[in-house]
Amino acid sequence: MDPVLAGSLPEKVEVLDTTLRDGAQAHGVSFSLQAKIRIALELDRLGVSFIEAGWPGSNPKDEEFFRAIKEYSFNHAEIVAFTSTRRKGVRPEKDPILAKVLDAETRWVTVFGKSWTLHVREVLKTTLEENLDMVYGTVRFLREHGIRVIFDAEHFFNGYLEDPEYALQVLEAAVEAGAERIVLADTNGGMLPHTVYRVVREVRERIKTPLGLHMHNDSGCAVANTLMGVLAGAEHVQVTVNGIGERTGNADLCQVVPGLELKLGVRALANPEGLRHLRRLSRLVYELAGLQPNPYQPYVGDNAFAHKAGVHVDAVLKTPRAYEHVDPGAVGNRRRLVVSELSGSANLVAWARRELGLELDKRDPRLRRALERVKKLENMGYSFDNAVASALLILLEELGLRKTPFRVQAWRVVSEGSEKGARSWGLVKLETPGGTILAAGEGGGPVHAVDEALRGALRQHLPESVEKVRLIDYRVTLPGAVRHTASTVRVEITFTDGTSAWTTTSVSSNIIEASLDALAQGIEYYLLRSQLARSRSEAPEAPRPA
Amino acid sequence: MDPVLAGSLPEKVEVLDTTLRDGAQAHGVSFSLQAKIRIALELDRLGVSFIEAGWPGSNPKDEEFFRAIKEYSFNHAEIVAFTSTRRKGVRPEKDPILAKVLDAETRWVTVFGKSWTLHVREVLKTTLEENLDMVYGTVRFLREHGIRVIFDAEHFFNGYLEDPEYALQVLEAAVEAGAERIVLADTNGGMLPHTVYRVVREVRERIKTPLGLHMHNDSGCAVANTLMGVLAGAEHVQVTVNGIGERTGNADLCQVVPGLELKLGVRALANPEGLRHLRRLSRLVYELAGLQPNPYQPYVGDNAFAHKAGVHVDAVLKTPRAYEHVDPGAVGNRRRLVVSELSGSANLVAWARRELGLELDKRDPRLRRALERVKKLENMGYSFDNAVASALLILLEELGLRKTPFRVQAWRVVSEGSEKGARSWGLVKLETPGGTILAAGEGGGPVHAVDEALRGALRQHLPESVEKVRLIDYRVTLPGAVRHTASTVRVEITFTDGTSAWTTTSVSSNIIEASLDALAQGIEYYLLRSQLARSRSEAPEAPRPA
Repeated sequence: MDPVLAGSLPEKVEVLDTTLRDGAQAHGVSFSLQAKIRIALELDRLGVSFIEAGWPGSNPKDEEFFRAIKEYSFNHAEIVAFTSTRRKGVRPEKDPILAKVLDAETRWVTVFGKSWTLHVREVLKTTLEENLDMVYGTVRFLREHGIRVIFDAEHFFNGYLEDPEYALQVLEAAVEAGAERIVLADTNGGMLPHTVYRVVREVRERIKTPLGLHMHNDSGCAVANTLMGVLAGAEHVQVTVNGIGERTGNADLCQVVPGLELKLGVRALANPEGLRHLRRLSRLVYELAGLQPNPYQPYVGDNAFAHKAGVHVDAVLKTPRAYEHVDPGAVGNRRRLVVSELSGSANLVAWARRELGLELDKRDPRLRRALERVKKLENMGYSFDNAVASALLILLEELGLRKTPFRVQAWRVVSEGSEKGARSWGLVKLETPGGTILAAGEGGGPVHAVDEALRGALRQHLPESVEKVRLIDYRVTLPGAVRHTASTVRVEITFTDGTSAWTTTSVSSNIIEASLDALAQGIEYYLLRSQLARSRSEAPEAPRPA
Repeated sequence: MDPVLAGSLPEKVEVLDTTLRDGAQAHGVSFSLQAKIRIALELDRLGVSFIEAGWPGSNPKDEEFFRAIKEYSFNHAEIVAFTSTRRKGVRPEKDPILAKVLDAETRWVTVFGKSWTLHVREVLKTTLEENLDMVYGTVRFLREHGIRVIFDAEHFFNGYLEDPEYALQVLEAAVEAGAERIVLADTNGGMLPHTVYRVVREVRERIKTPLGLHMHNDSGCAVANTLMGVLAGAEHVQVTVNGIGERTGNADLCQVVPGLELKLGVRALANPEGLRHLRRLSRLVYELAGLQPNPYQPYVGDNAFAHKAGVHVDAVLKTPRAYEHVDPGAVGNRRRLVVSELSGSANLVAWARRELGLELDKRDPRLRRALERVKKLENMGYSFDNAVASALLILLEELGLRKTPFRVQAWRVVSEGSEKGARSWGLVKLETPGGTILAAGEGGGPVHAVDEALRGALRQHLPESVEKVRLIDYRVTLPGAVRHTASTVRVEITFTDGTSAWTTTSVSSNIIEASLDALAQGIEYYLLRSQLARSRSEAPEAPRPA
């Protein structure tokens, strides 16, 4: 951390995660009840202080969640319901939405209210006085029912820049009514860090209740704005996992929390080991939200510690801190050495050593030939950035070590549908040392049907491979710039044997062919790697490939 | 902008774009020669000051570029070659890489050198004195050949925090040798904004040559760090389009430049209209890099001005500045209203008016029923955020206006493959007012085959629909949390008739079924929309749906 700051920071900052509430506003995102419960449990495991889970009264799904979540117990986190101030001209006890908030039976509630005169006048269409009373009355009402209150001042920064006195009066109304956290929200997300720092400093002069920050990312500064707010004296940060949220999203928990803990030396998670779950949590939320993970995401992305340019790789292995701002393991991520057309042979050598225990000479001509083939395939639309196993199969072939235990000779699929639904039947013919094997499979879709057929055939030929190897991810992308039904399809499949994971890839204009090839490669890689491991344990040192 | 700063900023900041050099280091990115030329021309049109285009001597592709680019003339930008300092123990005039740099014949060259003692000792494995001489000698050598020099101090911030005196001596060596820009690089990308601000301030005390910034995004603060550096006195910023670059990428031109021009009031582009090309440039680079655009990207992303939550939409239309931090048009983007389960009926009403010219009452029960169906489908894995046409078809059905001109009664596909490749044959049976139609089609993949069959059938029944409607995008995603070959597939297809575009979606465990359904919807939507347009032009006003 910057030595100049040592000592000037709070020892601890509270994290309120609002993935399930504000995050659910993200374009293209919608969580099932089960997904919301799973995410809440993972957030508690990480060690956040608050989980803002929904707005009772805004939709039945959220009310259902608050009923269901009572069955679960949490170690670190408080479940928080979210609501707006009472409607204008309605007494809190008569406001049906606030009644639903009480039904949610949470110990904490976030109340959001207006602090920008523009919004009070143009959107709420009421007087500045009525708005102050809506804030005061709503917070008071909840306090009288024994509920602890976090007050979110919507559009606070815009409001403060236009009319600081009124914006501060809104905060004071919430404080007088008993709010225990005062959160300054950049709802339009347009603020820059220097302004956030100055404004939080100035607010701190007037408001002694702990201040929080709720930042959106429209200027690309949500993470920086949150950290600068903490540097200015805030003690509570509101974030979402992966920064999912409306428009450009919110401050990303996966970037704010490591920034606080690893760079500013401020404790943010109740679980000291929590940070190590960060990448897993990030992946879980992408999956349940149905979003593709962002490989360039700081700290937790696939590429966050990926070293591509060949020149670096050797040096990185010798002196990590010369190239990595934090230890990848600290956030549950890992260093990746990527096979790629820009890289020298160093990467492939490193992979062969790490994955297969093969010691290769960088100048080995067979290595060069393998890299040439990798490049040629990349020009055809392949990408080996994730599919290292497929690249290693090419290397093994060039090394004369690819003794394929089986080959797919032919396959056939029939798929048909009507109003009654769809069905598929697949047939696969394998060539093996012991002769050809024919097997059939059935499934909803054509790929599922050939997958079943392949497993059927392998069960007869290599039963252990079918028992040991499980498929854990199947991805389909259309790599071309122009996409249509005749496009080439890139399939990536990730497998596991329970102890390690590997990924294969294949490209074809026929999704069944590409999938079958990637499936077969995955099994073949498992078998060849096991063979090499056995021969290593027999031989005193790694085998010198013939 | 923050009034407190008025006056304290430079009037103009130089932009150096390094998309073609540092950006090409991005994981999974590689530009063809033609792509590099096209991007350079677009950057000049935008009005950047410098285009850092490659490293002569690092690879033949880059040398080819510098030869080819001489054929083009630029209005605003200088083409810049990039190189490292001379190799240790070699005189500049004897260094083959520097010879190649002279061959590139650019008027400006960026020289990068070490300023972190750790790198000098551990990576370069030389003395601090030799490194100073490598910096001085290299810059001097280029100046003697009449080349103007930008000096990039690699890892400057890490170096300064560990050994400020040496880091500053490196900068002074470059200045004495004649460098005209001194760029402070956060090569590991781990810095936070407050430290960048402090360090730039301190360096400014010693170095009077214009300072620049080169920030990577590993802490998620590249944009903020760049802006804070300008606030501290830097006058030159190095960025890449969409922030593409190694690991988590570089500071994003598409976020830094609008931040400077729209928020800090600093001129950054020579072309006053340049900013309006921003989204187009962003799209071009994604396309040529073969990357999917990031819909959540600030300023230029599809969702940057997308308003989802129903409560907002009305207000946004009335008072944009209450919800949008800048005018979408200023960066060549536009506002988007999207259909979604969280939204009230306002969005669907707005779409029905905009797309179909239907005037609906928000309280219309048929509208409610349509939204209910949309919600139910979203719980099944559908997403209508992009597929507005599919949502409108549901609305038309509830309005009694969905007079379907055909229905897919049944389909069948046979697909087979062997070493010789794969082939598919499809058959589609359509039910139409004029009786059933049967047609067949052939293709590489199964989806292509049924697509051909459907077009064959429609050609007999509704020839104009097949002529007019073209498919411009076909996307396949596996929305489920766990993905395997039996996963549910979500298909999205975008169509155009040359004047407008629309998107449909369908979900199934069978990719053929989902694709066929989305294709049929696309044609149906086109036909129904044309009918409504015709009836409007006949009727004096929009038809009141029965």
